[in-house]
Amino acid sequence: MKIVDIIEKKKLGQNLNEEEIKFFISGVMSGAIEDYQTSALLMAIYFNGMDIDETTLLTKYMVNSGEILDLSDISDNIVDKHSTGGVGDKITLIFLPLIAAAGVYSAKLSGRGLGHTGGTIDKLESIPNFKTDLSVEEFKQNVKLHKTAIAAQTLSLAPADGKLYALRDVTSTVDIIPLIASSVVSKKIASGANHIILDVKYGSGAFLKTAKEAEKLSKIMVEVGKRLNRNICAVISSMEQPLGRAIGNSVEIQEVIEFLKGNMEPDLKEITFTLAQTALDKTGNSQNLEELVTSGMALQKFREIIKAQNGDDGIIDDYSKLPQAGIKYEVKSKSDGFVKNIDALKIAKACKNLGAGREKKTDKIDYSAGIYLTQKYAEPVKKGETVAVIYTNKKESVKEAEDLILSAYEITNEKPKSKSLIYKII
Amino acid sequence: MKIVDIIEKKKLGQNLNEEEIKFFISGVMSGAIEDYQTSALLMAIYFNGMDIDETTLLTKYMVNSGEILDLSDISDNIVDKHSTGGVGDKITLIFLPLIAAAGVYSAKLSGRGLGHTGGTIDKLESIPNFKTDLSVEEFKQNVKLHKTAIAAQTLSLAPADGKLYALRDVTSTVDIIPLIASSVVSKKIASGANHIILDVKYGSGAFLKTAKEAEKLSKIMVEVGKRLNRNICAVISSMEQPLGRAIGNSVEIQEVIEFLKGNMEPDLKEITFTLAQTALDKTGNSQNLEELVTSGMALQKFREIIKAQNGDDGIIDDYSKLPQAGIKYEVKSKSDGFVKNIDALKIAKACKNLGAGREKKTDKIDYSAGIYLTQKYAEPVKKGETVAVIYTNKKESVKEAEDLILSAYEITNEKPKSKSLIYKII
Repeated sequence: MKIVDIIEKKKLGQNLNEEEIKFFISGVMSGAIEDYQTSALLMAIYFNGMDIDETTLLTKYMVNSGEILDLSDISDNIVDKHSTGGVGDKITLIFLPLIAAAGVYSAKLSGRGLGHTGGTIDKLESIPNFKTDLSVEEFKQNVKLHKTAIAAQTLSLAPADGKLYALRDVTSTVDIIPLIASSVVSKKIASGANHIILDVKYGSGAFLKTAKEAEKLSKIMVEVGKRLNRNICAVISSMEQPLGRAIGNSVEIQEVIEFLKGNMEPDLKEITFTLAQTALDKTGNSQNLEELVTSGMALQKFREIIKAQNGDDGIIDDYSKLPQAGIKYEVKSKSDGFVKNIDALKIAKACKNLGAGREKKTDKIDYSAGIYLTQKYAEPVKKGETVAVIYTNKKESVKEAEDLILSAYEITNEKPKSKSLIYKII
Repeated sequence: MKIVDIIEKKKLGQNLNEEEIKFFISGVMSGAIEDYQTSALLMAIYFNGMDIDETTLLTKYMVNSGEILDLSDISDNIVDKHSTGGVGDKITLIFLPLIAAAGVYSAKLSGRGLGHTGGTIDKLESIPNFKTDLSVEEFKQNVKLHKTAIAAQTLSLAPADGKLYALRDVTSTVDIIPLIASSVVSKKIASGANHIILDVKYGSGAFLKTAKEAEKLSKIMVEVGKRLNRNICAVISSMEQPLGRAIGNSVEIQEVIEFLKGNMEPDLKEITFTLAQTALDKTGNSQNLEELVTSGMALQKFREIIKAQNGDDGIIDDYSKLPQAGIKYEVKSKSDGFVKNIDALKIAKACKNLGAGREKKTDKIDYSAGIYLTQKYAEPVKKGETVAVIYTNKKESVKEAEDLILSAYEITNEKPKSKSLIYKII
């Protein structure tokens, strides 16, 4: 078998069989297939696609390319959650204590992603002393004792995906549905949970731009999961505006705590509760989510997680223990009216400029940097009054961020109607 | 400018502008663009093509990537010829002495290609002591003195094409019309001649399979040449069957000499005379080609070329001075009838197995290996009588070659009509 023949086959629009996909992934891992051959094949896949059989096989061999976490000694009812990524997306940090408080097991490994703001692991690391580099044993022990744990991915899970992703990023082959599906599902399968809840977002702040694309991707991921004996469920939601009011790292931790204290932002609540309810339903649990928050049980579970992972739970009662930005700057509205939209991508870019994200893996994040949106969708604004607050230590970036934030806000005369963010559950 | 954005643009079907094409070629040359990015772009070009403006720009910057041979001190009326490649294609070796005998200047640089049989340079090197590695000065001096010279390409002509081709070969991106066009035309422009005659073949023995593809490619090459101030003419012909009767290296030299002695195979004559007449017309020469052969002037010119390049011209009078194969094996027909077709690709494969071609650049060619077709199109065959002769030193390959040859011959009961090979001149 020769890789050039496999490329030719896909170039001509033919389906690849199991032998060929196995050969491809094993060649990627061994180095027998050159990067320039892989990228040519990826581009051919962009144009000619992969059907569900091929996508399943690709996922299967990506899973098999590395270690697979075995959680079967803890429970055969363990939930994992994955978000396709969004601006202000702190849902994992509410979701995990919430379902753990309901008694549902979850085990969450997270990558340290690139992006406009930090990933979940970065957000957690803004909590003083919070330890995310757990060993496999520590991770499993914490899941056993506290129903949940969240750790940076140190194991070599689906390493073929990592190799392919590195190449896709620099060859304009990221936006290929079957490759996205196999990337997400392979890592989740290798992470060991049997129930996988996917938070799939579309819109200006997400990397899928339309509901149709999100639905297509979701259906494929659910089907691939089924064929590989995993129970996958996808919740599709709109991500035109940032989620919640805080975007950054420590500012998001503060918003998470406020939520668990009962101050639930409606958009965060809608999506988190939908995901959590799905997790409860799948695992046959009938607790009331609202009560888990109002009773303080979910907050208590968050405190327990922080302590279990060596973090300072004092932050829950005293936010000043979280990293604080040197500059706090209020952005004032230039007009009167109501917020019709806040462009999530512009807010994200502003956040990155303020120091909250990284471009290269080696970049350092300023945990205290971020943006707080005092006015959100359908809320009134007045000329000269604050719409958002900038937190940063980069004085030189304030003006640019202010301009980006103001251009992100779309103001209208009539008050917009409230709308649901959830598009569909698959 | 970033290459990933250029890949994305082509992926989305947009045209690349001059800045982008210049950036691409200069990045390929400097190594700033990685091979895996180049191959992704090439695959995107396979799917979304390049228009004539892009193809012209690509050709221009490929020419500019290396040296350009200056022949202007010899004449401003110099012919070059290029064939897209075929089985038994010894036309250059007849064409050059023929037009030189007519007084037309030509200068021919040839690559040492891979393929089922050797390239023109390999065929010449089967003549004892024939020197193909001429310096630029020797090459130009020979053109001046003898009206023609033929040398292995040692100059760095259009090196960007060499780099791209090496990558295309292993990433299934060879069969892309704008890339083929820019590859051929850039090398011909860099070779310095102002009249370029292209011998474009289609059919089972050629790499373009249909007349339509050949016509499309030809039109693009002619137009690109025009835009880059070169006079290009393309003669399109069918290559279903091998050209002439000899396929190999020294056996083809022998057929060339026979032709120049007046024993002109009709198919060889049709194509060579069409190409040569085009060269004469373009350069305003009105000699009679037939007379140049029958008078012995063309043969005399071939002798002159051999001597000028240090070869043993004694081979013209004594073929035994050419490399001789140890094994000479006659392939006998299994049936009676007429030859309806001889599959050129099968004959070529048989030839390679016998030792006449190379797979890797470092492989050694057996100059004496080859096949002679005693029966060709429309000629009668009788069961048990010879249809072809195998020349080789590889005893173990004879049986397989015999089978391939017999399966290449299609025999019919009715005598097929004679047909013209020339499809169109553009």
